[in-house]
Amino acid sequence: MERRDFMKKAAIGAAAAGTISAPAIAQDKTKLTMVTSWGRGLAGVFDAAQRVADNVNAMSGGSLEIEIKAAGELVGAFEVFDAVSSGQADMYHAAQYYFVGQHPGFGFFTAVPFGMTPTEINNWYYHMGGRELHDELAAEFGMRGFLAGNTGLQAGGWFNKEINSPEDFQGLKFRMPGLGGKALSNLGASVQNIPGAEVYQALSTGAIDGTEWIGPWADEKAGFQEITKIYYTAGFHEPGAALMTVINNDVFDSLSAEHQKIIECASAEANVWNLSQYLANNGDSLQRLVNDNGVTLKQFGDDVWDAFGTASQQVFDENMDDPMFKKIYDSFLDSMKKSAGWISQSESAYAAQRNRILGV
Amino acid sequence: MERRDFMKKAAIGAAAAGTISAPAIAQDKTKLTMVTSWGRGLAGVFDAAQRVADNVNAMSGGSLEIEIKAAGELVGAFEVFDAVSSGQADMYHAAQYYFVGQHPGFGFFTAVPFGMTPTEINNWYYHMGGRELHDELAAEFGMRGFLAGNTGLQAGGWFNKEINSPEDFQGLKFRMPGLGGKALSNLGASVQNIPGAEVYQALSTGAIDGTEWIGPWADEKAGFQEITKIYYTAGFHEPGAALMTVINNDVFDSLSAEHQKIIECASAEANVWNLSQYLANNGDSLQRLVNDNGVTLKQFGDDVWDAFGTASQQVFDENMDDPMFKKIYDSFLDSMKKSAGWISQSESAYAAQRNRILGV
Repeated sequence: MERRDFMKKAAIGAAAAGTISAPAIAQDKTKLTMVTSWGRGLAGVFDAAQRVADNVNAMSGGSLEIEIKAAGELVGAFEVFDAVSSGQADMYHAAQYYFVGQHPGFGFFTAVPFGMTPTEINNWYYHMGGRELHDELAAEFGMRGFLAGNTGLQAGGWFNKEINSPEDFQGLKFRMPGLGGKALSNLGASVQNIPGAEVYQALSTGAIDGTEWIGPWADEKAGFQEITKIYYTAGFHEPGAALMTVINNDVFDSLSAEHQKIIECASAEANVWNLSQYLANNGDSLQRLVNDNGVTLKQFGDDVWDAFGTASQQVFDENMDDPMFKKIYDSFLDSMKKSAGWISQSESAYAAQRNRILGV
Repeated sequence: MERRDFMKKAAIGAAAAGTISAPAIAQDKTKLTMVTSWGRGLAGVFDAAQRVADNVNAMSGGSLEIEIKAAGELVGAFEVFDAVSSGQADMYHAAQYYFVGQHPGFGFFTAVPFGMTPTEINNWYYHMGGRELHDELAAEFGMRGFLAGNTGLQAGGWFNKEINSPEDFQGLKFRMPGLGGKALSNLGASVQNIPGAEVYQALSTGAIDGTEWIGPWADEKAGFQEITKIYYTAGFHEPGAALMTVINNDVFDSLSAEHQKIIECASAEANVWNLSQYLANNGDSLQRLVNDNGVTLKQFGDDVWDAFGTASQQVFDENMDDPMFKKIYDSFLDSMKKSAGWISQSESAYAAQRNRILGV
């Protein structure tokens, strides 16, 4: 379905059902419903959504109240996009790459293979046109968004054997969603997209040979170290998965300027707070995985990385005939090259020397 | 002067002069005066202060209004600490390492040699005890603070000759403030702390042989590329200079919970926005410096880095008999080692491979 058609049908459907909502306003209080893609209490991602809501509620003194609905409480995890686009809910907190089916360009606003680190995506979003491009794309669905969390670079994942050459992916049953998964398919892997709650079971029964998830903290909680002991730390597929607060444009336009700014800053605070949350927990988890669980940390070799690069570029190229995708890709790549150029000569060079000397 | 004495005298002086202020409140509007260490309009740092104020004013709908005073408009650049501690002003925006004379521990909350990158300092501040330690130290002076900006990793600086060994610093007249400058002194450099506005003149007349400043964007604006063409990109001295909103505790306690949270989130938004601002501009500036101004980019060699490391550790050791300094140092180092351990195996390894393959 073309996205214009999708919008038309969604609008017609919503109007017919009488569900185009205005936010609930009573006694100078505005109440917004925020659906999310996260199970209630899910560490990290749900925390980020909760942080946005808590910030808004505290800053507004209750004059703007956000009520969170976890995945399944109002709509399913991946139905939040349509729910907010149609006005069934006011806003959502999720990762935009869940909605590459609505438009492949949304992938850039979470993470893409060989894409931006969290620092780089912030740079692009806040200062190099990313925000404007996101809102231009999201406006086609009647929405806009604010960065509101980041998992940090996601680990390469858990394997039942070492990966010594690109050929080792041939026939490997591996869980990886999104464009990264499509790239792995190009290398001959049998890629499966299994919901988070079912990954442990699939790995333990041998239904899959390996899986990526998030990083040491979340992976340790999932318990993958009980099943397999080979952990590749640096992955190519999600170098910093951004999360977003996305709000229906009609709802947003109906808010006061104060409340609009409160949502923006509440999200930005959650953005930096949440990335730090992952990072703060990853260090201890990584030590426990190695010291207490016998996990071996590995890095893919150069030839494997080269293969990841070629396979990822194929995935991009397949979408390049979509003008909006190409427009976002060009902006993303230009911004990434500029920021990466400086970072590699400054922060990366510094960190390498510091870590060498301090023995980190 | 001991800091307890300082506080006592400041309090007595202020009480005698009748200047312990309560924030100005009229018609449900609260007006706070924010002094800063920045000249009005100074790119990056003043922008961050302005961003905090704009965020607060917009989110509160004017019920809380921050009025900014640039350096010299109410008090001098380095007098903001005493002004807010004594209640002469309500809050300030500055870099806390300007106030290592009040307590050397403040250095950790901006940048120290061989210290944290911006991502790492956010991690420590928001989730690994940094914020609590800052406020414990600042409470001795009647204040608390919120991260509210970051310049990113500062460049190694501008030199009139290549630095091929640690001995090349012997007798070199170099501008570098803070603990980094003390470390360079340990290597035999003649270190000078010259205010920003006078550095260009000092460099062009040969009063100094070289200088560090901030990074490509700010350095290009300062015009150092007109005088010298050797630019070391990665420096050891300020691996991510954090800026802060600092507020008098009596003033903060007098605010409503909404206004308190608004100041916190306004600062956090400025924190991520400002770091991105530097990064977004550094890329283009770096290209111009090289392509249009004939600047040569250099990295210090391993033996020079080793010497920086030894000299920096000497500076830390000199302060270690102060219990609060040691308490902060221990927390800082523990957090840095944990976050750096994961970053080096994930984000750094990823970025190196990506940049190699994409030719960044």
